Amino acid sequence: MGIGDDGAVLQPSPATQTVIAVDTLVCGVHFPEHASAYDIGWRTLAVNLSDLAAMGATPRWFTLALTLPELDQHWLEEFSKGLFACAAGHDISLVGGDTTAGPLTLTVQVVGEVPTDQYLSRAGAQAGDAIYLTGFVGDAMAGLGIMQERYAAQGARREYLLNRFMKPSPRVDAGLAIAQLASAAIDISDGLVADLGHICAASQCCAELQLRDIPVSPQLVELLGKEPAQTLALSSGDDYEICFTVGPNFEPQLKSLFETLGLNITRIGHIKTGTGVVVITADGSTVAIGSKGYQHFS
Amino acid sequence: MGIGDDGAVLQPSPATQTVIAVDTLVCGVHFPEHASAYDIGWRTLAVNLSDLAAMGATPRWFTLALTLPELDQHWLEEFSKGLFACAAGHDISLVGGDTTAGPLTLTVQVVGEVPTDQYLSRAGAQAGDAIYLTGFVGDAMAGLGIMQERYAAQGARREYLLNRFMKPSPRVDAGLAIAQLASAAIDISDGLVADLGHICAASQCCAELQLRDIPVSPQLVELLGKEPAQTLALSSGDDYEICFTVGPNFEPQLKSLFETLGLNITRIGHIKTGTGVVVITADGSTVAIGSKGYQHFS
Repeated sequence: MGIGDDGAVLQPSPATQTVIAVDTLVCGVHFPEHASAYDIGWRTLAVNLSDLAAMGATPRWFTLALTLPELDQHWLEEFSKGLFACAAGHDISLVGGDTTAGPLTLTVQVVGEVPTDQYLSRAGAQAGDAIYLTGFVGDAMAGLGIMQERYAAQGARREYLLNRFMKPSPRVDAGLAIAQLASAAIDISDGLVADLGHICAASQCCAELQLRDIPVSPQLVELLGKEPAQTLALSSGDDYEICFTVGPNFEPQLKSLFETLGLNITRIGHIKTGTGVVVITADGSTVAIGSKGYQHFS
Repeated sequence: MGIGDDGAVLQPSPATQTVIAVDTLVCGVHFPEHASAYDIGWRTLAVNLSDLAAMGATPRWFTLALTLPELDQHWLEEFSKGLFACAAGHDISLVGGDTTAGPLTLTVQVVGEVPTDQYLSRAGAQAGDAIYLTGFVGDAMAGLGIMQERYAAQGARREYLLNRFMKPSPRVDAGLAIAQLASAAIDISDGLVADLGHICAASQCCAELQLRDIPVSPQLVELLGKEPAQTLALSSGDDYEICFTVGPNFEPQLKSLFETLGLNITRIGHIKTGTGVVVITADGSTVAIGSKGYQHFS
């Protein structure tokens, strides 16, 4: 059964737990007013899939609550194309929704599945674990800056950075691949230091990062220079990469695993005893960084 | 596990299917701007529980996506009181959410469970089935009218009608009670004729209603007079009663079942062959009514 009844009826797979996550995007807050309908559709689902990725869950179903100022058929078609393009890449089905009149606001709820008691969580990191990050961080902040005309970039570099903000790639395959290896995981939505801080709080430990090891894209380095890019990437949000911790026994398996996925990973530091996130800068000095990333209402 | 990780991990019960429904309330569209925070909290969950009720599902978990113009601690406390008062009555737990800045918009998604393949749907009504309705219809429309100062009422009558709009009682127990008896069910959110029209469309049949049998509350009759109340109640929304169809074999069981629940039910007509909803008026004339209730964007 799908859309049409008062609710959707879903058949859970045997020996699994259900994982649900919900994220809202508000026009003018989470994306600029002139963002394309296609990109809004993609991004609305992608940021939710990223939550499933961080938990090592397999995406199954999603619902969409769409609040629209007016019924614009063309906008809806483009939005749907973006939404379903993202859905198709992750084998997830739309099973319900609600459309209401009001200021443009989009809430997606995703439903995934994990083998019973094998989900990734924020708790579980231990002193001695290495800290890894998928892909690059900082790109999305630069993409948003370009949309807001705070940064200037042209051609392929502009295109790359814009897409990194508006069309993030949820790391679902990475989350599934590390589900048996990682001791803790989180997706980077509020910023690396802020989100890693959540792992530290839940796991009661300290994360020590090497600034020089923060992975930044060539495009971001061309825009800002390497060290400024790495510094900004500590606290910039919206990248939707996965940060995870892994014990020494499992580290050797990671490289070939991610080569198979075609995704780069980088070891950016280690878990220590203590609390909070500490960053070691180029000159070897230690900076303790507050756990706040960018936050609404701040 | 609860709120805190990227998602919530839920353990499905054995031999069940999962039922999910989602509904958004927008300030100024689904409730007046001066509605109390407590009532908004109650109503946001109640309208979603009503969807589970219509499917014969047992409520289990819900998520809340809350978009707020500003962080108002007092408003949030009152809102939470209303939300959890409604939740407590139905043994459903908040397991996740998202809070964002923007125009006041609330999306709740409820997760319920039904024994495998025993959910109620809109399809399944057959010629010869009786059509029943729980409680009274039309009250919510009058309550909204009072809030908008289109109707005047005082004292207990005013209180009753206002509460029927802002604090609907989701008929979860009724939905569970009829799950083994009813051939089709729906909750009345868009209006009796509109929602019954959905049953007719899904079941490929016609519904014939007796206007004189439409159940209206004494309070609504005092406000409008009996026949005008019944006529308005055909197309007024937001009552969140359950309309269901039941075959002749099961009708005798209904009365004692609902006496146990302490909820009145009324037989309002029968399913026939054909299409759409037909209403027989006091003088015996037949009026075919379009299947549109109140609709946004109309």
